[in-house]
Amino acid sequence: MNIAIVGTGAMGKVLESLINDKAGMQCVGTIEPMQGGRLTDIREKIDAVIDFSNPVNLDMIDAYARESGCGVVIATTGFTPEQIEQIQSLSTIVPVVYTANFSLGITVMRRVLAEITPILKDNFDMEIIEKHHNKKLDAPSGTAIALLAAMNPEHEYDEVFGREGNRKRGKEIGIHAIRGGTIVGEHTAIYAGEDEIIEITHIANSKKIFAVGAIRAAEFVVGNKAGLYDMEQVLF
Amino acid sequence: MNIAIVGTGAMGKVLESLINDKAGMQCVGTIEPMQGGRLTDIREKIDAVIDFSNPVNLDMIDAYARESGCGVVIATTGFTPEQIEQIQSLSTIVPVVYTANFSLGITVMRRVLAEITPILKDNFDMEIIEKHHNKKLDAPSGTAIALLAAMNPEHEYDEVFGREGNRKRGKEIGIHAIRGGTIVGEHTAIYAGEDEIIEITHIANSKKIFAVGAIRAAEFVVGNKAGLYDMEQVLF
Amino acid sequence: MNIAIVGTGAMGKVLESLINDKAGMQCVGTIEPMQGGRLTDIREKIDAVIDFSNPVNLDMIDAYARESGCGVVIATTGFTPEQIEQIQSLSTIVPVVYTANFSLGITVMRRVLAEITPILKDNFDMEIIEKHHNKKLDAPSGTAIALLAAMNPEHEYDEVFGREGNRKRGKEIGIHAIRGGTIVGEHTAIYAGEDEIIEITHIANSKKIFAVGAIRAAEFVVGNKAGLYDMEQVLF
Amino acid sequence: MNIAIVGTGAMGKVLESLINDKAGMQCVGTIEPMQGGRLTDIREKIDAVIDFSNPVNLDMIDAYARESGCGVVIATTGFTPEQIEQIQSLSTIVPVVYTANFSLGITVMRRVLAEITPILKDNFDMEIIEKHHNKKLDAPSGTAIALLAAMNPEHEYDEVFGREGNRKRGKEIGIHAIRGGTIVGEHTAIYAGEDEIIEITHIANSKKIFAVGAIRAAEFVVGNKAGLYDMEQVLF
Repeated sequence: MNIAIVGTGAMGKVLESLINDKAGMQCVGTIEPMQGGRLTDIREKIDAVIDFSNPVNLDMIDAYARESGCGVVIATTGFTPEQIEQIQSLSTIVPVVYTANFSLGITVMRRVLAEITPILKDNFDMEIIEKHHNKKLDAPSGTAIALLAAMNPEHEYDEVFGREGNRKRGKEIGIHAIRGGTIVGEHTAIYAGEDEIIEITHIANSKKIFAVGAIRAAEFVVGNKAGLYDMEQVLF
Repeated sequence: MNIAIVGTGAMGKVLESLINDKAGMQCVGTIEPMQGGRLTDIREKIDAVIDFSNPVNLDMIDAYARESGCGVVIATTGFTPEQIEQIQSLSTIVPVVYTANFSLGITVMRRVLAEITPILKDNFDMEIIEKHHNKKLDAPSGTAIALLAAMNPEHEYDEVFGREGNRKRGKEIGIHAIRGGTIVGEHTAIYAGEDEIIEITHIANSKKIFAVGAIRAAEFVVGNKAGLYDMEQVLF
Repeated sequence: MNIAIVGTGAMGKVLESLINDKAGMQCVGTIEPMQGGRLTDIREKIDAVIDFSNPVNLDMIDAYARESGCGVVIATTGFTPEQIEQIQSLSTIVPVVYTANFSLGITVMRRVLAEITPILKDNFDMEIIEKHHNKKLDAPSGTAIALLAAMNPEHEYDEVFGREGNRKRGKEIGIHAIRGGTIVGEHTAIYAGEDEIIEITHIANSKKIFAVGAIRAAEFVVGNKAGLYDMEQVLF
Repeated sequence: MNIAIVGTGAMGKVLESLINDKAGMQCVGTIEPMQGGRLTDIREKIDAVIDFSNPVNLDMIDAYARESGCGVVIATTGFTPEQIEQIQSLSTIVPVVYTANFSLGITVMRRVLAEITPILKDNFDMEIIEKHHNKKLDAPSGTAIALLAAMNPEHEYDEVFGREGNRKRGKEIGIHAIRGGTIVGEHTAIYAGEDEIIEITHIANSKKIFAVGAIRAAEFVVGNKAGLYDMEQVLF
């Protein structure tokens, strides 16, 4: 399977190294459009393009994919609404994976929470703990909010961000944001019931996890029919 | 919903208290056959019988359920093969839940592991840690073996019980049995990948968890058609 | 070593059973003053009295200890200031252990936090997580406040009870109160630094832990000279 | 405070960056002896030298320190017995920190375990869990062995590396080596008692932790008298 990478930043380098370590997959080119690189410069046939670059490169990727029919994995963020429409239009021609979070682990965790919450919620109280480095300004994290959405899809629980003083626990989910040191990202969903507890934890130690997910997405697009997919469809 | 309990041991008492705390459910009788108690002594209509007693009481429960059509939840263990056939025969007439482990949490955990392992296994190494009290003789625990079966259904991984010395990790799942103090039971499945880890932990703090599961099973049998069910069918 | 117990409540029974399981120690009597029991009713020599009863029994214990010279462990709470003075006065005659929390684990944890915080605080951010059952009204727990006091003795850090919205982490300790199910009590102190984290966790699964500590205190008073001691002096 | 670094490898670069971020401390030179760099090339006064290089550079460092009187932090490993004698000899002239593990966290954890084990061991069972990446060949880790030494200084407990089959827990410490993914290093000491558990965990996410410790050691040598010190003396 021949993969081309758009973007020579840190993620591009990690991707290239992971791809070349994988049996049956090779990187046939890593281009940096800012420095004049073009997908059409690559001689070999491209089965899938992985884009970890900048929204400005969408036109080039779009044109190449329409022409060649290759699959596309878009891990760049910050597109305008018009660009998102362009991605949707492209996905009627070729298979495209475009998703908020490429991490395998977070995708699996969201799916699991969405599945088990309806079964457990009458017998278990739910809480979320998330931990990040001391420079992070926002709380809770975007990932914690996504996990919460999986646990509380119909907003039947109040969302409580810390507790202090005297108050009875109501129909609520507590979300607790720990901040300290250089923690990359850790998320725990707790289901606490009658003498039993289930905890599901995801720990991220670097951004490399997004590269691993993008490669899974590239394997998925090759051989799939045209369409717009997210990571949950790639994995499940 | 009217529930009758067979067995006045510790579990019977816990069950009775939990049932009476639950809206729309009441315990209409707790009998101890050893002391001559019979289900037919109970005046009120019984919707479901929960049995936390002794295999010798199966005949009485069987006869009563065939006669009255009530649902049956069997949380007793130690039946002979003939008795298991008798339970199967009964389940052609009335709905019966008979399962190895009534815990909601362990049932959910097994299901989750069976579902996510095929998705994760190419990118993540799997390990199990279980913790129990210092009097437990066997290792690993029966529950750990059940979780392992969910992670390794086709025995493609070797099972390794601890590590010492120099050896490369192969295609294997490590299972680690911690023993200490009065720990009731804790099981963790670890999926360790490229800079990310998923951990799923179940903690049991008493045997009350089996009572909670048996009540969920009783709710399930009432209104379900005849058949033999396990906890996974009750919950999912 | 001969121990007498004042108080026949749940803790008294646990104590009696633990004492009789211990080599070289026996319970020579458990009395319930509410029902007319007196320490003077006990025939055998008493080396130490453990009181898990009610403040009203202090006079009897005080009189007996002054007379016999036995050691005293007071695990009852709710004394008036005058009664606390009485305990102090008694401790000039016999050895007395009187402390807020008899748990070995919490005593050790407080000591450890007090010792390591000055060493770590310039390189590590500190946070506390505590977990309790869903009926608990106050947050944070009294034990969390005691641990916080060990980490922040000179109030140089602000104390933050949950985080929401955009704000830079300041010179602060975050304290996070999880509430759910029937959790008896869990406390974690986190030190998060540059690519390393230290976590110290204490998990309580029942009130039996106070009985275990009271027995250690009884061993301590026998053979020690008169004085007022707390659990830290018993253990360290 | 003026620091010179010997060694321009990954650790040297991390050190330089951390030192220059620190108020009152600056890196006055990073030299690579392999490429002809010498401490005497540095114009500014050196308060302390940190060596993260190769045993072959010991002679140069030794000569420079004897001449200038600067403090020395040796974070290189693999010295011959003769070189270790040379380090000891140097430490009679200037303050030297030479230690097996520069991590603040592991140093603190060893100290804590050594201190609390005598207090807890009669009431708590002890176990160790360590987790490392799937490429690590040896089990248990060297750090786990060092922690074990702190918990079992007089070898009164047997050391058990995993459990399988039927056997009563004896007077033993279980050590459990988890291997998976890219885990940098995690160590947990468990004390499991009568209904209470204490867990102390250290998580390392990169080798940067050794640089942080080496800087603490550099602060320590400046202003201390001649002598050979390890990290425990630096911190406590």
